[in-house]
Amino acid sequence: MASEHNFRLPEALDGFPRESPEIIDQYLRRLFPIMRSITGNGVRQTHDILCVLLPLQRTESPSGTPCFDWNIPKEWHVREAYVIDPKGQRILDIQDHNLHLVNYSIPFRATISRAELDIHLHSLPEQPDAIPYVTSYYVPRWGFCLSHRQREKLLEGQYEVVVDTSLESGSLTLSDAVLPGRESREILISTYTCHPSMANNELSGPLVAAFLYRRLAAVSDRRYTYRFAFLPETIGSIAYLSLHGNHLTSQLEAGFVTSCVGDRAPFTYKRSRRGDTLGDRAACYTLEHYSDAAPRLIDFVPRGSDERQYCSPGFNLPVGVIARSIYGSYAEYHTSLDNLHFVSAHALAGSVDACFSICMMLERNVKYKRMMPFCEPQLGMRGMYPTLGARRKDEFVHALMWLLNLADGEHDLLAIAERGNVDFWLLDQVAQACIRENLLVL
Amino acid sequence: MASEHNFRLPEALDGFPRESPEIIDQYLRRLFPIMRSITGNGVRQTHDILCVLLPLQRTESPSGTPCFDWNIPKEWHVREAYVIDPKGQRILDIQDHNLHLVNYSIPFRATISRAELDIHLHSLPEQPDAIPYVTSYYVPRWGFCLSHRQREKLLEGQYEVVVDTSLESGSLTLSDAVLPGRESREILISTYTCHPSMANNELSGPLVAAFLYRRLAAVSDRRYTYRFAFLPETIGSIAYLSLHGNHLTSQLEAGFVTSCVGDRAPFTYKRSRRGDTLGDRAACYTLEHYSDAAPRLIDFVPRGSDERQYCSPGFNLPVGVIARSIYGSYAEYHTSLDNLHFVSAHALAGSVDACFSICMMLERNVKYKRMMPFCEPQLGMRGMYPTLGARRKDEFVHALMWLLNLADGEHDLLAIAERGNVDFWLLDQVAQACIRENLLVL
Amino acid sequence: MASEHNFRLPEALDGFPRESPEIIDQYLRRLFPIMRSITGNGVRQTHDILCVLLPLQRTESPSGTPCFDWNIPKEWHVREAYVIDPKGQRILDIQDHNLHLVNYSIPFRATISRAELDIHLHSLPEQPDAIPYVTSYYVPRWGFCLSHRQREKLLEGQYEVVVDTSLESGSLTLSDAVLPGRESREILISTYTCHPSMANNELSGPLVAAFLYRRLAAVSDRRYTYRFAFLPETIGSIAYLSLHGNHLTSQLEAGFVTSCVGDRAPFTYKRSRRGDTLGDRAACYTLEHYSDAAPRLIDFVPRGSDERQYCSPGFNLPVGVIARSIYGSYAEYHTSLDNLHFVSAHALAGSVDACFSICMMLERNVKYKRMMPFCEPQLGMRGMYPTLGARRKDEFVHALMWLLNLADGEHDLLAIAERGNVDFWLLDQVAQACIRENLLVL
Repeated sequence: MASEHNFRLPEALDGFPRESPEIIDQYLRRLFPIMRSITGNGVRQTHDILCVLLPLQRTESPSGTPCFDWNIPKEWHVREAYVIDPKGQRILDIQDHNLHLVNYSIPFRATISRAELDIHLHSLPEQPDAIPYVTSYYVPRWGFCLSHRQREKLLEGQYEVVVDTSLESGSLTLSDAVLPGRESREILISTYTCHPSMANNELSGPLVAAFLYRRLAAVSDRRYTYRFAFLPETIGSIAYLSLHGNHLTSQLEAGFVTSCVGDRAPFTYKRSRRGDTLGDRAACYTLEHYSDAAPRLIDFVPRGSDERQYCSPGFNLPVGVIARSIYGSYAEYHTSLDNLHFVSAHALAGSVDACFSICMMLERNVKYKRMMPFCEPQLGMRGMYPTLGARRKDEFVHALMWLLNLADGEHDLLAIAERGNVDFWLLDQVAQACIRENLLVL
Repeated sequence: MASEHNFRLPEALDGFPRESPEIIDQYLRRLFPIMRSITGNGVRQTHDILCVLLPLQRTESPSGTPCFDWNIPKEWHVREAYVIDPKGQRILDIQDHNLHLVNYSIPFRATISRAELDIHLHSLPEQPDAIPYVTSYYVPRWGFCLSHRQREKLLEGQYEVVVDTSLESGSLTLSDAVLPGRESREILISTYTCHPSMANNELSGPLVAAFLYRRLAAVSDRRYTYRFAFLPETIGSIAYLSLHGNHLTSQLEAGFVTSCVGDRAPFTYKRSRRGDTLGDRAACYTLEHYSDAAPRLIDFVPRGSDERQYCSPGFNLPVGVIARSIYGSYAEYHTSLDNLHFVSAHALAGSVDACFSICMMLERNVKYKRMMPFCEPQLGMRGMYPTLGARRKDEFVHALMWLLNLADGEHDLLAIAERGNVDFWLLDQVAQACIRENLLVL
Repeated sequence: MASEHNFRLPEALDGFPRESPEIIDQYLRRLFPIMRSITGNGVRQTHDILCVLLPLQRTESPSGTPCFDWNIPKEWHVREAYVIDPKGQRILDIQDHNLHLVNYSIPFRATISRAELDIHLHSLPEQPDAIPYVTSYYVPRWGFCLSHRQREKLLEGQYEVVVDTSLESGSLTLSDAVLPGRESREILISTYTCHPSMANNELSGPLVAAFLYRRLAAVSDRRYTYRFAFLPETIGSIAYLSLHGNHLTSQLEAGFVTSCVGDRAPFTYKRSRRGDTLGDRAACYTLEHYSDAAPRLIDFVPRGSDERQYCSPGFNLPVGVIARSIYGSYAEYHTSLDNLHFVSAHALAGSVDACFSICMMLERNVKYKRMMPFCEPQLGMRGMYPTLGARRKDEFVHALMWLLNLADGEHDLLAIAERGNVDFWLLDQVAQACIRENLLVL
C-alpha cells in the first residue's frame, strides 16, 4: 500500500477540540453497509446516523416537484434482488453486495436464458475483480453488476431473475445544518449521501463534513455563518439550489464540495469556475503550505460532482472541490474496490484538519489598516524590534514589516502572506500584537 | 526539396465546393510571366485575368491624387529594355526575365563604359545565381539586375544601354469585390498585385484571395460581408484607405493580408498591432489545430506588407497576415528564385482551405446563452447524455458540458474551445444540437 | 579581487561634462575617517564637505520634535572612548577605529572585570577579523566592538572603561539641494550620511548623489526638478517626510535611494512598492541595456533603507533603490571590512554614469504623437528611407518604423523601446529627426 500523505495542522489551531480518528472510523463502519440511492430509506437512515454528529434539518422534496429543468423523481425501494443460476445457486444477491443491483432498477421477475441475462449484466474486463457501480435514474431499466471473473464463469442455461423493487411517488431527502456566525455571509460545505457501499466516493465527504461541523461549532465568536448540505448528488444539489439559490447568490463568500477525502493520496483542489475566489486562494494556500506533499491544483472543468450545479452559468457561485484522489482519477473509483481498505481513518481526520484550517483562514483573513500609515512606527520602543542595530534576521520582524507595509485596507492578510512569502498564521499572530500596540485597526 | 506541409480541412467544412489544385495552377502559370509594377498595364492585365474568377470592381486613381502623406505617382510603361555588350550580344533583356530591369526605371539610351554601367547594376554576391528584384518608385533612376555569376563575366568595353520606358500622368489601379452577408460588419482580405514574375511573393496572395472568394460565394446565408482588395503594395493600400478608411474603421471585424502563401513550408501568422483581436484568435486557433506542422505565430512588427498601413496608429485596424514562409524569411525572397518551382498548386489549395476555415470560424463564432441558466439541464431525457451512469468518457459530452457551462452570453464559441480545450467545430455541432433542444439561444 | 563590473554611458550622453574618478576618490578619502552618527558634528562636518560639491540647504530639526510616530532624539557627542586592559594597554580606542564604540553609547567610566566587560562586547565569530558596526539609538546602552580574534586574546583581570560621550538636547541635521527644471514634477535622489567609516555602506551613496547633482546641473533646459536629500538613515527620512511628504506626494515622478554603489559588483535595482513605476522601468531598462553584466532586479521588500519610509502605505511613493552589492548581501556589510579597498573610484564613477543615464532617460521619455496618423508617411522623399527598394536591413529604419507605428500619444518612448526591442537612445535620436520633418509632435 502506498505511503499515507497527510496534513499538518497550523500550530495556531492546536488548541481547538479535535475528535480522534477512532471515532471517525466508527461512523465510517456504521454507514458503509447501507444500501443508498438518490432517494429512499437508505438515505434517510444515513442522515439519521449523521444527525448524532450534527443537528441536521431535513427537507423532503415530493416526487414531481419541478426544479429548474428537472423534476424530483419517484422514490425507489428495494426489497430483494438476486439471480438463481442453472445449478440453483443464488448469485448476485444484494445481501452479498449492494453494488450487484443496478441502482434504480425497475421491478422484474422472470426466468431467462443466459444470453438474455447477459444484456443486463455489467462488468469491467480490465478490472476483473471489481464489481462496477452502475445507475439508471432516469431511464427505466434493470440490471446486475458483477466482477468480470464471475461473469466469465456463468454457466449456460436458464436463470431466474428477481428484482423486487418499487418506484413510487415519495420524496427526495435533503438535509442541512446552519452554524451561525457574527456575519450573515456564508461558507458552504456541500457533500453527497447517495452512494451505496463505497468508501472514498462517497462516505468520506459526508464524514469529513460532519466532523468539520463539530470542529467549527467549538470555535467561539465565529465570523462567518457555515452551511453544511448533505444531498443526493446532482438532483439533490439542483433541488437545494431551487430552494436556496437566491439566498446563496447573495450570501455565499466561499464554498467547497468535499468528495473523495478518505484515501491516502496527497490533496487535490479543483478551483471554482471563477478560478481565483477567496475560497480558491485560501484552499490553495493552505494545502500548499500545510500538506506533506504538493497538492494537485486543478482548474475548473464542468465535469465532476455538485460543483457543476453551483458553478452553472446562472449561479456561478464561488464553490471549489476539496479532495484527495479526486473522482475519476483512481482505478478503484465507482467499483467495489473503493472499500474500507481503500480509505483510512487517519486520512479522514487529516482531511477534517485541512478543511478546518481553510475555514479558519477565511475567519482570520481580514484587511487591516495602519492606524497611522506614514513611515514606519517606532517598533523598538514597543519591544517589537531588536533595539541593538546589528546584522540579524528574524521571522517575526520579517512578518511584521510586511504587515505594516501592506496594511493599507486593500490587501487582505492572505495577499500579504502571498506577496511577502510569509506564513499566514504568523502574520495573524503578528497582527494581534499590532492591534494590542494600537498599530493596526480593522 | 523539403517535404510539403499542408492544412487539413475541418470535417464540418467538407461539404462546400472546392476548386482543384489544377485550376489554381492554370491561373498561376497564366499570371506569372506578366511584367507588373505598381502602375501600368501589367497590373490591369493581371486584374483582367482575376476578373474571370471574381467580379472585381476597378477604381483608377489619377496620378497626383493626394492620399494622406502621399500622391499617386505617374504611370510607368516599358516598351523594351536591354543592354548590348562589347561583343554585340543582347543581354539583360526584359524579354528574357522581367527582373532584369529595375522596376520604375526612367528612360535612358546611351553607350557607356563597363565602369559606368556597373554603377547601375544590382546583383547578390551571396546568391550568385539569383537575379534580385529591385524597385525605385520614388527616386528617378535606371538600373539592371542580374545574377552575380553573369555580372562577373561581363567584359571590359563599351555597352549600349536601352531603357525605353515612360513615366506619364495616368492612374493607379485598385480593384475590389464585396461579397455581402447578413451583417454589415466586414472581413477584409487584402493582397497585392504589383510584383513581376515572382511566384510566392506575390502571385500566391492574389490567387488564394481569388479562390477564397469563390469558396465563400458558395456559402449560403453568410453572416459577414467579405471585402477582397487587390492593390499595388504600399501606395495601393494607402490609396484604398484614403477612399475606404472611414468605412473600414466603423465596419471591420477582422482582416487578413494574404502574402507568400504558395510555398511548401508550415504556416505563419503575424498578429495585428492590437495582438488579440477576433481575427488573430481565429487564425491562430485554426492554424494551430488544423495544420500538419506547428505554425509560426509572430507578434506584430511595423515592417512587412500592407498591414503596416492598416495597422498605422490612426487606423489600428484588426488586420494580421496569413503566410507560409513569410516575406524576408526565405532565401528566394525578392529574387528570380522565387519562381514556379518554389510554389506548389497543392500548397496554394491548402492555403485556400486554411483561409476558408478561418473565415468560417468567424462565421460560426457566436456568443450563445443558456435558455435556462440555472444548474445543468436534464440531458439524458433529451438523448444527449449516457443514461446509464457508469464510468465512461465521451468527446461529445465533454464538449456539451463546456458549452452549457460557458454559454453565458460572454464567452464566444472560440473562447469556450480555448478554455475547455475542445475542438471548435465539435462545439459548433453540439451548439446546433442544443439549439434544436431549446437549450441555447443566440 | 573579483573583476570590476561597470556601466557603459549611452553615446547620446557622451557630450555632457563628467568628473574624473580621481576627484571622486579625493572626496571619498576625505570623508571616510569622520566619526558619523545620526546626529552630531560628524554629520555636520560631512555635509560641510559635500557643500563644496553642491549647494546644500541645511535644516536642523530640534531634539524632541515629533515626526509621525517618532521624536527627534537627543544629539550625541563623543569625546573619547577606550578601554585599558589589565596590562595597562589602551585598546578599543575610537582613535584607532570609529567602529570600536557602539554608536550612541551612553557615558560610562569604571573599572570592571573581564566578565563584566564581556557583556558589553560585540564581535563576529564567523568573521574573526572584522569589527562589527553596532548601534543603539533608542535604548540607552554602552558597548565596544572588536574583531573576534582580538576578543579571544583578552586577558583575565580588571579593565578600565572610558566612554566619554554625551546625549543632550540638540538637533538632527537634514540637507537638501533642489535643481529646478521646466516642470515642477520632481525626481528625488535620497541618500544617507550617518554611517561612520564604512565605504560602500555608506559613503558611496552620498558621493554618487553629489556628483550626479553636478552632472545634471550641467544639462541645460532640464525638464524635471531634481531634489537631492542627504539624511541620517530612518529617522532622517522620517523627519524629511514629515516636512516634505505632502509636497512629494503631489510632485514626485520618480525617486531613487542610492546606497552601496561603490563596490565592483554588477548593479542591483530594487523596485518600488508599486513595482512598475516610470522610475522602475527606466532604471531596469538602463541597467539591463548598458551594464556589462546582467543587473539583479529585485522586487520590493519592506526591509532595507529609506525606501521603507518612502514606500510606507500612507505615502507609497515611486521610490526604488540603485545599488551594486545591496545592503545585507555581502560579507563585508556593516563591518570594518567595508573599507576603502572594498570600493573603487571607477566603480563610483560608473554608478554616477548609471544614475545620470537613468535621469536622462526620464528627461527624454515622452509620449509623441504622429502629426498625421493615417498610414505611413512617405519617408523616401524625406531621405529617411532607402529609396532603392531592395533587401536591406537598417537599425535606423527599424527604430523609425516602430516609432511611427506606436507614436499614438499613449506609448511613451520607453514603451516603444520595450515593445520593439529598439534602443531607447536610438529612438530618441530618430524622434528628433521626425520632429524636424514635422512627422511627430509632443
